[in-house]
Amino acid sequence: MSNGHIVIGEIFGTAVLILLGGGVCAAVTLKKSKAQGAGWVAISFGWGLAVLAGAYIANGYSGGQLNPAVTLGVAIKTGEWSTMPYYLIGQFAGAIIGAFLVWVAYMGQFQAHLTDPELVRSLEGPAGTTKAGSAPGGPVLGIFSTGPEIRNPVQNLLTEVIGTAVLVLFILTQGMTKGLALNGLGILLTALLVVGIGLSLGGPTGYAINPARDLGPRIVHALLPLPNKGRSDWSYAWIPVVGPLVGAAIAGGLYKLAFT
Amino acid sequence: MSNGHIVIGEIFGTAVLILLGGGVCAAVTLKKSKAQGAGWVAISFGWGLAVLAGAYIANGYSGGQLNPAVTLGVAIKTGEWSTMPYYLIGQFAGAIIGAFLVWVAYMGQFQAHLTDPELVRSLEGPAGTTKAGSAPGGPVLGIFSTGPEIRNPVQNLLTEVIGTAVLVLFILTQGMTKGLALNGLGILLTALLVVGIGLSLGGPTGYAINPARDLGPRIVHALLPLPNKGRSDWSYAWIPVVGPLVGAAIAGGLYKLAFT
Amino acid sequence: MSNGHIVIGEIFGTAVLILLGGGVCAAVTLKKSKAQGAGWVAISFGWGLAVLAGAYIANGYSGGQLNPAVTLGVAIKTGEWSTMPYYLIGQFAGAIIGAFLVWVAYMGQFQAHLTDPELVRSLEGPAGTTKAGSAPGGPVLGIFSTGPEIRNPVQNLLTEVIGTAVLVLFILTQGMTKGLALNGLGILLTALLVVGIGLSLGGPTGYAINPARDLGPRIVHALLPLPNKGRSDWSYAWIPVVGPLVGAAIAGGLYKLAFT
Amino acid sequence: MSNGHIVIGEIFGTAVLILLGGGVCAAVTLKKSKAQGAGWVAISFGWGLAVLAGAYIANGYSGGQLNPAVTLGVAIKTGEWSTMPYYLIGQFAGAIIGAFLVWVAYMGQFQAHLTDPELVRSLEGPAGTTKAGSAPGGPVLGIFSTGPEIRNPVQNLLTEVIGTAVLVLFILTQGMTKGLALNGLGILLTALLVVGIGLSLGGPTGYAINPARDLGPRIVHALLPLPNKGRSDWSYAWIPVVGPLVGAAIAGGLYKLAFT
Repeated sequence: MSNGHIVIGEIFGTAVLILLGGGVCAAVTLKKSKAQGAGWVAISFGWGLAVLAGAYIANGYSGGQLNPAVTLGVAIKTGEWSTMPYYLIGQFAGAIIGAFLVWVAYMGQFQAHLTDPELVRSLEGPAGTTKAGSAPGGPVLGIFSTGPEIRNPVQNLLTEVIGTAVLVLFILTQGMTKGLALNGLGILLTALLVVGIGLSLGGPTGYAINPARDLGPRIVHALLPLPNKGRSDWSYAWIPVVGPLVGAAIAGGLYKLAFT
Repeated sequence: MSNGHIVIGEIFGTAVLILLGGGVCAAVTLKKSKAQGAGWVAISFGWGLAVLAGAYIANGYSGGQLNPAVTLGVAIKTGEWSTMPYYLIGQFAGAIIGAFLVWVAYMGQFQAHLTDPELVRSLEGPAGTTKAGSAPGGPVLGIFSTGPEIRNPVQNLLTEVIGTAVLVLFILTQGMTKGLALNGLGILLTALLVVGIGLSLGGPTGYAINPARDLGPRIVHALLPLPNKGRSDWSYAWIPVVGPLVGAAIAGGLYKLAFT
Repeated sequence: MSNGHIVIGEIFGTAVLILLGGGVCAAVTLKKSKAQGAGWVAISFGWGLAVLAGAYIANGYSGGQLNPAVTLGVAIKTGEWSTMPYYLIGQFAGAIIGAFLVWVAYMGQFQAHLTDPELVRSLEGPAGTTKAGSAPGGPVLGIFSTGPEIRNPVQNLLTEVIGTAVLVLFILTQGMTKGLALNGLGILLTALLVVGIGLSLGGPTGYAINPARDLGPRIVHALLPLPNKGRSDWSYAWIPVVGPLVGAAIAGGLYKLAFT
Repeated sequence: MSNGHIVIGEIFGTAVLILLGGGVCAAVTLKKSKAQGAGWVAISFGWGLAVLAGAYIANGYSGGQLNPAVTLGVAIKTGEWSTMPYYLIGQFAGAIIGAFLVWVAYMGQFQAHLTDPELVRSLEGPAGTTKAGSAPGGPVLGIFSTGPEIRNPVQNLLTEVIGTAVLVLFILTQGMTKGLALNGLGILLTALLVVGIGLSLGGPTGYAINPARDLGPRIVHALLPLPNKGRSDWSYAWIPVVGPLVGAAIAGGLYKLAFT
């Protein structure tokens, strides 16, 4: 794996991850989407299969980490830190590209959803002044980034720490099961695990469990000139970055303590 | 692989693909079907498992491409263009057979659905003249072919381009993961990817991502003497042909640029 | 494989198949079940995973056919007919045991469902004479056996023929994909195919695609002393026996014609 | 496998099993969870993927049994009883840790749910005396432990016996399928089986099929100082312990009788 291969693999893989992951949120959320209202099972499988898609595409070049938290956990395990910058560059660049492609694929739906008279009216104040963005986040931020159902930094952080620790510990211990490295199916198992984390631990915060997955698309949300898009909720943005990194560090430490 | 084997494999495989893929749309759409209203999760898994079914049946003879876009992407990768006509013949013939079999399996449901008094009334104009077909497409065209929720050629094309590019890039890079060729599970992964593309990118256009999948059944819709079947929406028919081919060409180009 | 092993394997495997397959129908249908109303996605996955369960348990002894239609297809392919009686004995005995176990696992739910005052009232005629069983089938027959949404022998037969032909052709061509025999995952793929057949072709008749799966539990329905259980609908019983056998014969013939 | 490795593997694995399994129940049940109301398909996949997560993490150290019933079945098969105490210690300790982590991840949701004025009012008697806990169990016990829809010890026990017997027989016969031990995918199949058992046999009692899975979290429910949490329903607690152990013993006996 050359550093160039790492960057290319992570860009492609993370772009596909976010395209399909953000895509399922758009599909389930937006008006004039055939999947509107398909619910949490659709979202959990959508994100898990987004991992499958992106990680297999990246696999030959970078191993398909697609997540700074996974990169941190792997670095703690292996002691190999020098490639980390290349992983991070690829991951954030890929996440930004992927979020932009979600908008391209769903641009008509975004337009229809955000200019819906009922939505617009709900955003207007009594004097008719547009209040778009006055709510923390808004009706389409959830297609790009995560947000809590109950805004409580301590709990929100803990939920992200726990979810990411499970993900990273699963990946770090995967080498202990004979045969998975040979048959190339470790990524399939990780993708199914991500379905499970979504179903089980996604309820409170929407399970970022990946700093690039949350921060990259949030930047795109901030930049895209969508009408009535609401705020990008920057006050929450540190939690899906710090929580996953702490979770990965804990998983890395537990792995070194208990499994070596 | 002889050319005859390719044609046979692709006919059988694509027929099963469209039988099960069109089948799930019939199952979820038509009156007097036990699965009516089962929703988008059912449709996405139904199409993904239709790929699993058709591609494994075809695999020993043709590799189970079942999709002119995949065939184009593989040709760009390998430089082997001479077998392409055999793939295309098998794919379109198979798609037509498969769509016909959907009608056979669901003929009672088609009859009950299309002669339902409420549906018929909604199709009649004020003077009692039948307006069947006046809408673009109609109530059962979606069982055969795809159609957009918002009719916007640019976006519709882009959505098909993006979805197909992900599919083809996934297939082209699959050889970079060790072990998949040996254990015969690459098709399983591709089938799961198709579930994911359906969940994530199916919202705007219904994800043809395969020219044969859309055009073959549309011809069957045009020919079948169903009452009140509506128009076959030929003005849209070029998008699910051109979009997937463009997407496959982009994926093939990206593969050659970035992954070789 | 001794004949005794075949019988044992098929008894255990088919019993588990019907226990889990009938179980999911009970779970989704009956009052006082936590899964009541879980819908067609639950039923399709439930039956597919029932195949996974039963076929892997039986696999080491009998190969896990669990279905006279599969046994017929395999016999046409291999020319080995002498073991067929042992397969059939095991399959029908297992199906009867499995259907009985569904009743054991859900006995309280059957009791609550069938003695529900609203259900009982709907079964009584104007003069108060009990009409239980006057409907073809009844409210719980669907937990044991299949039945058509539209009673049309020609279509019902064709739907079963088509669904079973796909199943058997998939199984017969599985040996053409390298690696599946070695890694023991052919059954997993077949189980996923059965999920797909349920989603796609289950709408009209409930997809017996297996004579033992339908006839064995129908006998149990006829024998169990359940109150208000309705008729066992014997006039339909030949279709889910003949249809799958015809489908398997067609698949066997197509395999020999096209794939050898 | 040293005894210390067994304890460590089972603690980690069972903690993750209960964290994700209890997590999906919290996700689907609690107010202010994004997955509230996601239904039985979500719960069944959530628990199955919880097995996937926990068993793969534990696999290299302890084989990932995570369930005293599985441990009993394996001991009957192998005759190796000396490691059993280490498995049991790890499983119960892990289950307690996992249930506690569910509360950590969902603490805001527990608070919002249990202090919801409507819930509180429904728990108050006519004179305003708090009746919290007067019902057997209560609104959140189901996140920790199982409970019957119809309280009938004989049926409840039989349902747990049957479900566990299927699980253990599946695991014990897995070695008879060539290749699974080599490719490390036996756990994936077992996890999918658990999805199936949930869909098919979970309706009456919520499918404990694992004494540690039920008893450990019930202790945590009893200890956690949650408002209006209801009773821990200790009168039912013996059934999800005894039923699975009896089911495992039957499966072990059937395996020795029929499959060796």
